[in-house]
Amino acid sequence: MKIVLAPNAFKESITAPDAARALAEGVKRAQPDAMTIEIPLADGGDGTVEALVAARDGEFVDAEVHDPLMRLITSRYGLIDDGRIAVIEMAEASGLRLLSPEERNPMKTSTYGTGELIRHALDRGVDGIVIGIGGSATTEGGAGAAAALGFELLDKSGVPVSPTGEGIADIAEIRVENVHPRLYEARIEIASDVTNPLVGPQGAAAIFGPQKGASPQMVERLEAGLRNLANVWERCLSYSIGDTPGGGAAGGLGAGLLAFCRAEMRSGFELAATYAGLDEALEGASLVITGEGKIDESTQYGKVPFGVAVKAKAKGVPAVALAGGVSGDLSSLYESGMAAIFSITPGPVSLENAMANAETYLRDAAEQVIRLRFHR
Amino acid sequence: MKIVLAPNAFKESITAPDAARALAEGVKRAQPDAMTIEIPLADGGDGTVEALVAARDGEFVDAEVHDPLMRLITSRYGLIDDGRIAVIEMAEASGLRLLSPEERNPMKTSTYGTGELIRHALDRGVDGIVIGIGGSATTEGGAGAAAALGFELLDKSGVPVSPTGEGIADIAEIRVENVHPRLYEARIEIASDVTNPLVGPQGAAAIFGPQKGASPQMVERLEAGLRNLANVWERCLSYSIGDTPGGGAAGGLGAGLLAFCRAEMRSGFELAATYAGLDEALEGASLVITGEGKIDESTQYGKVPFGVAVKAKAKGVPAVALAGGVSGDLSSLYESGMAAIFSITPGPVSLENAMANAETYLRDAAEQVIRLRFHR
Repeated sequence: MKIVLAPNAFKESITAPDAARALAEGVKRAQPDAMTIEIPLADGGDGTVEALVAARDGEFVDAEVHDPLMRLITSRYGLIDDGRIAVIEMAEASGLRLLSPEERNPMKTSTYGTGELIRHALDRGVDGIVIGIGGSATTEGGAGAAAALGFELLDKSGVPVSPTGEGIADIAEIRVENVHPRLYEARIEIASDVTNPLVGPQGAAAIFGPQKGASPQMVERLEAGLRNLANVWERCLSYSIGDTPGGGAAGGLGAGLLAFCRAEMRSGFELAATYAGLDEALEGASLVITGEGKIDESTQYGKVPFGVAVKAKAKGVPAVALAGGVSGDLSSLYESGMAAIFSITPGPVSLENAMANAETYLRDAAEQVIRLRFHR
Repeated sequence: MKIVLAPNAFKESITAPDAARALAEGVKRAQPDAMTIEIPLADGGDGTVEALVAARDGEFVDAEVHDPLMRLITSRYGLIDDGRIAVIEMAEASGLRLLSPEERNPMKTSTYGTGELIRHALDRGVDGIVIGIGGSATTEGGAGAAAALGFELLDKSGVPVSPTGEGIADIAEIRVENVHPRLYEARIEIASDVTNPLVGPQGAAAIFGPQKGASPQMVERLEAGLRNLANVWERCLSYSIGDTPGGGAAGGLGAGLLAFCRAEMRSGFELAATYAGLDEALEGASLVITGEGKIDESTQYGKVPFGVAVKAKAKGVPAVALAGGVSGDLSSLYESGMAAIFSITPGPVSLENAMANAETYLRDAAEQVIRLRFHR
């Protein structure tokens, strides 16, 4: 009997690789002879790189880069497939988690460090780069990343502007003469779980600005800056972002990577599932167990459990989801092919308890799922 | 497909009949064509009568009786099988729940009202009486019940003693001339979930006295009173209680019903399962879902989920248990035949939330169990 364990991370609790391992342990308790395949997944948000590196048995390398406020830090990125592909989590260089709450200010922050990670990988000679772009501290359309890669962002007097939320309103010209020579040789894939466009009421400034520390006035200025940047892309790079889904991801880094780097935008889940080999693993499986911290009505919008159910259904494999919390109308998940959904909490427990014991609870729940499904 | 729903009550939350109904609704959501059989169960504790009346489609009748402190109250008991069998819950007349915390005092309390319920049923002409004896406020060896049925409990001067925890130490003689004429014509079955003997370190006074309000000194006096009563039974009724399991149930009412009424002691679960027709219901079933408020290591000691698993295994039917909370080592439950055990909590919730929403959570959990088990 082959059982596939394909969870997302349980946010702020356990990583996808740890969740997959806990599930596998639970399966083995119920069916010691079962063949278990651990396929840690992600959806483009935080944890995507960790899942990819684990799934492909890769490694992490350190790199000195600048954080969102341009302070030097030691960051890291992953290398998979014998070092041919770099997997970069933008949050490792430009994430909100690198700032204290008082430091959050999207006028001042930059994705410069993310560009440095890309440059580091290009210098190393990679053929491909996968960038997970969840959890950014920035709203500058990827201007910082572009600057780190050699793009010159100039104001109307030809003076370089600061690649921050504040600076992008002044960009009048983009020069490409000094762009990293290998930038267009590598295939750059963006893993995103966000479908918001760059600008407008659903855009990067309006929707995500406030959680990064933007006041209503700042949101207006950031929106104007992003609109200016989009105009300059059209004029100088012949690139029109329009309302491309995902352009607003990571404060417009999504759009910036498309415009500056000619990257490809992919569904974070699809990308993770492809690299992790989910389809192959599902072949001939008796069951797949997926999971995520929460399962609710939003799960159907490209989250890991939904994606697993769809792929499992295509292979005729029953899918079961385990979550820290389950709520809302789940009918669209059932329609996608999900057989059943259970919470892992063993009774009335606090959120702290549930998060601290997620590994144990996952293991126990997986054991029960296998017991119930295969009891003869 | 036939699915049997055979839960106990979820203590202080929902009754067994309501739990069975919620489970059946969940099953129907997952499998609208399923045939559901609701078998509300009990284990001899609180809720036994409610479960039996529901299972046999019986009715309740009111009766004026005395509460543990000899105040008149309107109590009730059930009638099943066309009124031929009475089902009496001792707690409805002599239960701890009828007293305020300050009133709890096993020196002063009596099972007189329980005897009145028995008398009421005998007057009605029943052939059989089932008495559930959980939750008593008393520790008087059933002296009160006996007095209500016409037994004369006299001290060494021939003066009637008070049938209370305090009084039983003075009983020197029991006279039977005025016992209810139909007492020995009816079959009296005790439904108990307690196996403690009447006296000794595991006896009624030592183990249950304190929760009924007894101080250490009172426990000693109650123990002495029960020992005296046992001696008088031997002398006057030729009945030796010894360490009969269940003699210590309900403050010794278990022993008292054996000695005074020649009742039969039955496992509460076995009795409830027999009256509810569990074995017949399991015949040819695809699954049985049982449940209880808590499932833990103590569940194996005669509680409903354990009993259901054993009976289900004998019929080759997989059993699944749902509980408000699950904890501890469950291996003996698995060995008994339990396929799987799930908590019904949908995430981190408070005890109050779990208890207030037990019906919803049970329904949802049953739906998932059926979905997982029968997904094709």
